[in-house]
Amino acid sequence: MNRRKPTMADVARHAGVSLKTVSRVVNQEPHVRASLQQRVQAAITALGYRRNEAAARLARGATMLTLGLVMENISNEFYSRLAAAVEEAAAGHEALVVFGSYEESPDKERMLIESMYARGVDSLIVVPSAADHSWLAEHASLTTVFVDRVPQGLDAADVVLLDDVRGARTATEHLLAHGHRRIALISDDEGLSSVHDRATGYRKALGAAGVTAEESLVVRGVFEPGRVAYEVIRLLDLPSPPTAFFATNNRAAIGILQALRERPERPAYVGFDDFALAGVFNPGVTVVRYDVSRLARNAVELLLNPSPAPRRVKVPVELLARGSGERPP
Amino acid sequence: MNRRKPTMADVARHAGVSLKTVSRVVNQEPHVRASLQQRVQAAITALGYRRNEAAARLARGATMLTLGLVMENISNEFYSRLAAAVEEAAAGHEALVVFGSYEESPDKERMLIESMYARGVDSLIVVPSAADHSWLAEHASLTTVFVDRVPQGLDAADVVLLDDVRGARTATEHLLAHGHRRIALISDDEGLSSVHDRATGYRKALGAAGVTAEESLVVRGVFEPGRVAYEVIRLLDLPSPPTAFFATNNRAAIGILQALRERPERPAYVGFDDFALAGVFNPGVTVVRYDVSRLARNAVELLLNPSPAPRRVKVPVELLARGSGERPP
Repeated sequence: MNRRKPTMADVARHAGVSLKTVSRVVNQEPHVRASLQQRVQAAITALGYRRNEAAARLARGATMLTLGLVMENISNEFYSRLAAAVEEAAAGHEALVVFGSYEESPDKERMLIESMYARGVDSLIVVPSAADHSWLAEHASLTTVFVDRVPQGLDAADVVLLDDVRGARTATEHLLAHGHRRIALISDDEGLSSVHDRATGYRKALGAAGVTAEESLVVRGVFEPGRVAYEVIRLLDLPSPPTAFFATNNRAAIGILQALRERPERPAYVGFDDFALAGVFNPGVTVVRYDVSRLARNAVELLLNPSPAPRRVKVPVELLARGSGERPP
Repeated sequence: MNRRKPTMADVARHAGVSLKTVSRVVNQEPHVRASLQQRVQAAITALGYRRNEAAARLARGATMLTLGLVMENISNEFYSRLAAAVEEAAAGHEALVVFGSYEESPDKERMLIESMYARGVDSLIVVPSAADHSWLAEHASLTTVFVDRVPQGLDAADVVLLDDVRGARTATEHLLAHGHRRIALISDDEGLSSVHDRATGYRKALGAAGVTAEESLVVRGVFEPGRVAYEVIRLLDLPSPPTAFFATNNRAAIGILQALRERPERPAYVGFDDFALAGVFNPGVTVVRYDVSRLARNAVELLLNPSPAPRRVKVPVELLARGSGERPP
C-alpha cells in the first residue's frame, strides 16, 4: 500500500485544498489564486505526484487504434484462446481489441462487422462464417485479415490458416498406425475451408494406407457437442461400428467424451484443437495442437503491415498423444 | 447464395458502369452525368439494392459507444462466459465491447484501464484485482461498474456481486448433509472480496453444524490448477485426510480433478462456478452455479443508467448436484 502512486486526492489532502483546485492547477486552467497554486505545487513536489498519463493523452486527443475481432462464439474455447492471444499481440502494438460473436449466423456476422466499421474500427480480424463475403470489398478503407478459414467470394484476402490437411492426415495416420481400419470422421460444415481441409487430410491418409473411406462412417455438419454425442452413439450402434474416431474440432471431441460417458465401448479417438481439460480426462485426449499465439501474432502483423498483394500464412500443427488415440481396436 | 443482399458491385455490373460511379450516385456526389445516374438508379431498383447502413452511419460521424471490459484472464472459462454475456447485453444497447486481461497483475490492470480511458472509453466493467483502486476516483468522467468483487479503496462504487456467502454455505451444508465432517477449503487470495465471502460461507456452515473449522484443512492463495492439485495431494497424504473438498472457483475444481487422476481416493467435492465440461466427467462435478448473463445484464444496465448513490446488486446462486458432491465419506 505504501508503494502506490500518489493521486490528486493525496495532493489535495496534503495541500489542504479541494480536489477541484488540484485539478485546475494540474490542468493549467486559468484563474487559480497564486497562493493556492503554490500550495498545490509544493504538495506535488513533496509527494512526487505525476500527472495522470491517461488524462494527458486524452487531452492531446490521442486517436484510438482499435482492432475488431469477429468470431463465432467466444464461449467456445478455441475462440477464447484466440481472443486472449489477439489481445496480447495487439497490446504489443498499443492497440485495443473490440470483439463480437456472431454465433452461427452470417447475418449477425455482417451486422457486427458493419457496426464496428460504422463506429470507426477499420482494422478487423475475422474468423469467417461459410457465407459469401464479397460485400466486404465495398468497404474500401477496411483492412481485414481472416483467420482459421478462407472467406468465400474474396479473391484478394490476407489469411492466416492452420496446416489443416497435414494435421488431419497426421491424426488419421496415428489411428491407422495403432491398427484401426474403421475410422469415423466427425466433421462440421464442409463449407468452412478448415473443415473441408481436415476432411481432405483424413481421406488422403486413408487412401495412402489403401483403406476405403466408408461414407457410412462420416458425419458432417455437426458442431454442438450434444448432437455429436448422438451421432457417435448412432455409429457405435451400427452392425459394424467404427473402432476409432477423428474429431475435426474441440467441440466434436467433447461430444465424443459425452457419448462415452453413456457407453461401455472404448474406441480410440483423436481431436483437432487442444483444450484446457484435455489432459485431465482419463485417458487424456490425444489432439492435433498448435500455438494459438502464433496464429494471433501473424494476423496482427499482417493487419498492421498492409500489402497490395494478398498473403497466406500457414501455422504448423503437431500431434500430442495423451492416451485416447493410442487404444487398440 | 441467392438470398444474399445485392452489393454496389452487383449494381455496377447490372448497370454496366464502374463501382466508383455507383458509389458517387449512392453518396449523392455532384458532377455525375444524368444518363449514368439513370442507369445506376434503374439497376438499384431492379436489384433492390439498399445503401450500406454502415457506410451511411460512418458518413454521419456516428460516435462510438464502447464499453471497456477489464478482466483477469479471458482464457479462464469464468471470464470467457462473462465476456460473451457482456457482449450480448451490450449489443442489446448497440454498444461495442473492448476487452483486456490483466492476468494477476494490478499494474497491468491500471495500465489497461488508463489505456482504455485515454482512448475515449469512458464506460467500464471491471472485475477488480485485490489492489487499491482509489486512483480511479481521479478520472471524473469515467463511469465504472465492478463485477464479482468489491474494489478496495472506493467507497462509492456500483458493484454487481454473486451471493457468495450463501453459495459457499449451501455447498458446505450439502457436503455436511452427505455425512462429511472433515471438509477442506481450497481458496484463492482472500484479499478478493468474493473469495473472502466464500470462505465466510464455508465457516458459517461448519459453525452452524457444530463442526470445528480445522486450519490444517484450509488452503489459501492458490488459483493455478497444477498448484491446487499439488495441495490436494498434500491434504490427502495427511494422517487424518479430508473426506471432502469445497473449491471456491472453477480453477480449484479443475485442480481437484487433476489430483484425482493421480490418486485412488474418491473424496466428495463441490465447486463454485459451473464450467462446460463439468457434466462430462464421471461422476459429474457438483457446483454452485448462477446465471452469468444476469451478472452481465445487471452490470450493463447500471453502467447505462448512472446514479449519484452507489448501488450494489446481488445475483442469486444455486447448487447443481451431478455426483461428485454426493459421495459418502
